[in-house]
Amino acid sequence: MAQKPSIPKGTRDFSPVEVQRRQYVMNTIKHHFEHYGFMPIETPSFENSDTLLGKYGEEGDRLIFKILNNGQYLNKVNEEDLQSKNEYKVSPQISKRALRYDLTVPFARYVVQHQNDIAFPFKRYQIQPVWRADRPQHGRFQEFYQCDADVVGSNSLLQEVELVKLYDAVFTDLKLNGCTIKINNRKILAGIAQMIGAEDQLIDFTVALDKLDKIGAEKVKDEMINKGISKSAIEKLNPVFSLQGDFASKLDVMRSLLSESETGLKGIEELEFINNQIVALGLKSANLDLDITLARGLNYYTGCIFEVAAPEGLKMGSIGGGGRYDDLTSMFGLKDVSGVGISFGLDRIYLVIEELGLFPDSVRAGVDVLFINFGDIEAAHAMNLVCRFRESGIKTELYPEAAKTNKQMKYADRNEIPYVILLGEDEIAAGALLLKNMKTGEQELLKPEAVIDQLK
Amino acid sequence: MAQKPSIPKGTRDFSPVEVQRRQYVMNTIKHHFEHYGFMPIETPSFENSDTLLGKYGEEGDRLIFKILNNGQYLNKVNEEDLQSKNEYKVSPQISKRALRYDLTVPFARYVVQHQNDIAFPFKRYQIQPVWRADRPQHGRFQEFYQCDADVVGSNSLLQEVELVKLYDAVFTDLKLNGCTIKINNRKILAGIAQMIGAEDQLIDFTVALDKLDKIGAEKVKDEMINKGISKSAIEKLNPVFSLQGDFASKLDVMRSLLSESETGLKGIEELEFINNQIVALGLKSANLDLDITLARGLNYYTGCIFEVAAPEGLKMGSIGGGGRYDDLTSMFGLKDVSGVGISFGLDRIYLVIEELGLFPDSVRAGVDVLFINFGDIEAAHAMNLVCRFRESGIKTELYPEAAKTNKQMKYADRNEIPYVILLGEDEIAAGALLLKNMKTGEQELLKPEAVIDQLK
Repeated sequence: MAQKPSIPKGTRDFSPVEVQRRQYVMNTIKHHFEHYGFMPIETPSFENSDTLLGKYGEEGDRLIFKILNNGQYLNKVNEEDLQSKNEYKVSPQISKRALRYDLTVPFARYVVQHQNDIAFPFKRYQIQPVWRADRPQHGRFQEFYQCDADVVGSNSLLQEVELVKLYDAVFTDLKLNGCTIKINNRKILAGIAQMIGAEDQLIDFTVALDKLDKIGAEKVKDEMINKGISKSAIEKLNPVFSLQGDFASKLDVMRSLLSESETGLKGIEELEFINNQIVALGLKSANLDLDITLARGLNYYTGCIFEVAAPEGLKMGSIGGGGRYDDLTSMFGLKDVSGVGISFGLDRIYLVIEELGLFPDSVRAGVDVLFINFGDIEAAHAMNLVCRFRESGIKTELYPEAAKTNKQMKYADRNEIPYVILLGEDEIAAGALLLKNMKTGEQELLKPEAVIDQLK
Repeated sequence: MAQKPSIPKGTRDFSPVEVQRRQYVMNTIKHHFEHYGFMPIETPSFENSDTLLGKYGEEGDRLIFKILNNGQYLNKVNEEDLQSKNEYKVSPQISKRALRYDLTVPFARYVVQHQNDIAFPFKRYQIQPVWRADRPQHGRFQEFYQCDADVVGSNSLLQEVELVKLYDAVFTDLKLNGCTIKINNRKILAGIAQMIGAEDQLIDFTVALDKLDKIGAEKVKDEMINKGISKSAIEKLNPVFSLQGDFASKLDVMRSLLSESETGLKGIEELEFINNQIVALGLKSANLDLDITLARGLNYYTGCIFEVAAPEGLKMGSIGGGGRYDDLTSMFGLKDVSGVGISFGLDRIYLVIEELGLFPDSVRAGVDVLFINFGDIEAAHAMNLVCRFRESGIKTELYPEAAKTNKQMKYADRNEIPYVILLGEDEIAAGALLLKNMKTGEQELLKPEAVIDQLK
């Protein structure tokens, strides 16, 4: 039966040019991951449910795609649970596998499971799809790639320095100049909360502070008051709300503000080390900026936090982020393994590059040159040359049928093939090829060797 | 809660060196796909269930992984179906998406869905994982990659010629010399069945014939008799059972055998064209062989069939296969689109290359060179050089802590890093680096530029 074909909402088909462009971004990231010493791993698309469930909060559990067991799965369900139609109880009985929700939990699972085969510090990268049952909407998909690099088993702040350099190297290579790598330290946030007596309200406090950019100081203060933080405490925050200047001078303000918080000063010291190293090494096109309001998934990170903003003027959320976490693998029973990592937002980076017209012309889907097919005899001659061209590294095809030249030319056009070769009776007799530049329309009669040299 | 971490049966984690080796195979295949004019597409990991179900037979439907709907899915199930615990009826009500079972059906769906954006003939390749709920066993996985190249919208036999050349190019590049590309034509099988009056038993007949290699002519004949094919008919098959010699002479025998079957002769003619073209163009390391017993998924293919056998002496099933199908897209309502394609068996190719020790040394996981960390001051000097090395295209890292040299050396060893650089106080003073070859143990004091030149 013929069906009108479609794909699930929130998923995407990628056309040849889209695949090539995505590959270009991923390969650029991958190149730098490897030059920085990160090694690739891959984990299965689905994990045992108990590996994933309970790791992302209640909302996360709901958004995890669960895979139905095969065979007679209903027989094994508790009768009462089934009668009461309680999905919360039935799901674990009919589904023992779930699709990967992110790359971090599978990575933690991998490290613990393979700890005896790993030489620590372990620097791994992973570029794989993840799945989330989010309501599909513009720019939010149920299947998307994550590109993560993490180091586990090293407390050294040089890792943070390296990760800043890595962001700069990737975005510079993608010609995405002027990105801002925002950095903060969870210890500073903890220090501020301590200072204003809101240690127990650290999350409320940082969630409010995180909105400074969007809603302004007054509204942030209102929100804090609503959350029960005292007015006098909030008054102490004024230097934070008006923080300005370069990295070092912001740090100075924070240092005097936090002079009585050991934790806060530790955070300052860490950022100072990182900034000094980055100043000494230099960045090529990105800027490193201290953003005290940056919060990012507090329950998770314990040290530095990163977030990358696209070049100014682009309406686009963060295109990367990460940070240090001190206890990731303990959920699988391996304690005291500190880690730090960053992530690249592939879909958003793609959109930014597209908007700025920065995809190189060489990133195309079609071949370099198409041989026009004039019939069996000509095609047999062409096939020989097609093989030679390919062996010389030129992406080549012969149109498979002796269709009208016009149709063949249209095919070249639609696939954006830059050159076409006409090899008819006359050219064969002359031992030459007629090379047509599809952009300029220019034609040139050349020996095969000359064409190969030109196209290589 | 600490859990003992594991992954579902039939799935795999890939370590850094395994990922790199798999990438090496995939990139080699990809390289040639693109040089032959195939363009990449990607389709979602899950499709609407009705896109997949009913396309792979009853057994296939059972092996498709179904994804549980989110939310309160039990409320929507028909009460009677739920009470009777009829999975066959309940599954479609609680699962509307399913994981990709192969790349062929999603490709057909893609072609029909995007037919207005495609310039036919459409040459696409696709390298993505597929999932099957097969019972896990040695060498059979629930998640594995398929690597397919197909052309749709062209009847030209030049496509078959190209695909034989493509197999040869890939396997030659992988140094897998001596593969046999077996070819047959479904029309020949139909012709034989016609000739012996077993047209209605084409499948029984070919299933039996397919076993010739394994069980010998007598047992094949027994099986055919059991299936109700007459003795006298089977007698006519003797030339098939004893078929020998080169491609052309086998074809001659078959031509006289099938002289009265129009379909059979058409099949012969097609193979003759392909063989003549291949003889003219030459193969680099593979052999093209006519294998009249080759059957491969008869319900699907309508013309030529391919199967690739690994070099002789290796106990390994086919490492590739494919063929021509005349009606793939009609399941989604687009008729009369002929297609032909081939597939590479990634996992088996990997095993063969591994067994033969053919992975190049350059396919490694670790960096090219590790800087030993002697402390903060030395590390700061090293970081500068690390950056320069990376910019010169050398994969470089600095050990993140000033751990004992022994421990750092061990790290280099375990990650198979071929060179280590010692940059201590003396070397810094001399403006030089001590480069140690980890294989030979040789050490050399060199200027940074000289090291870069050597490692590049």
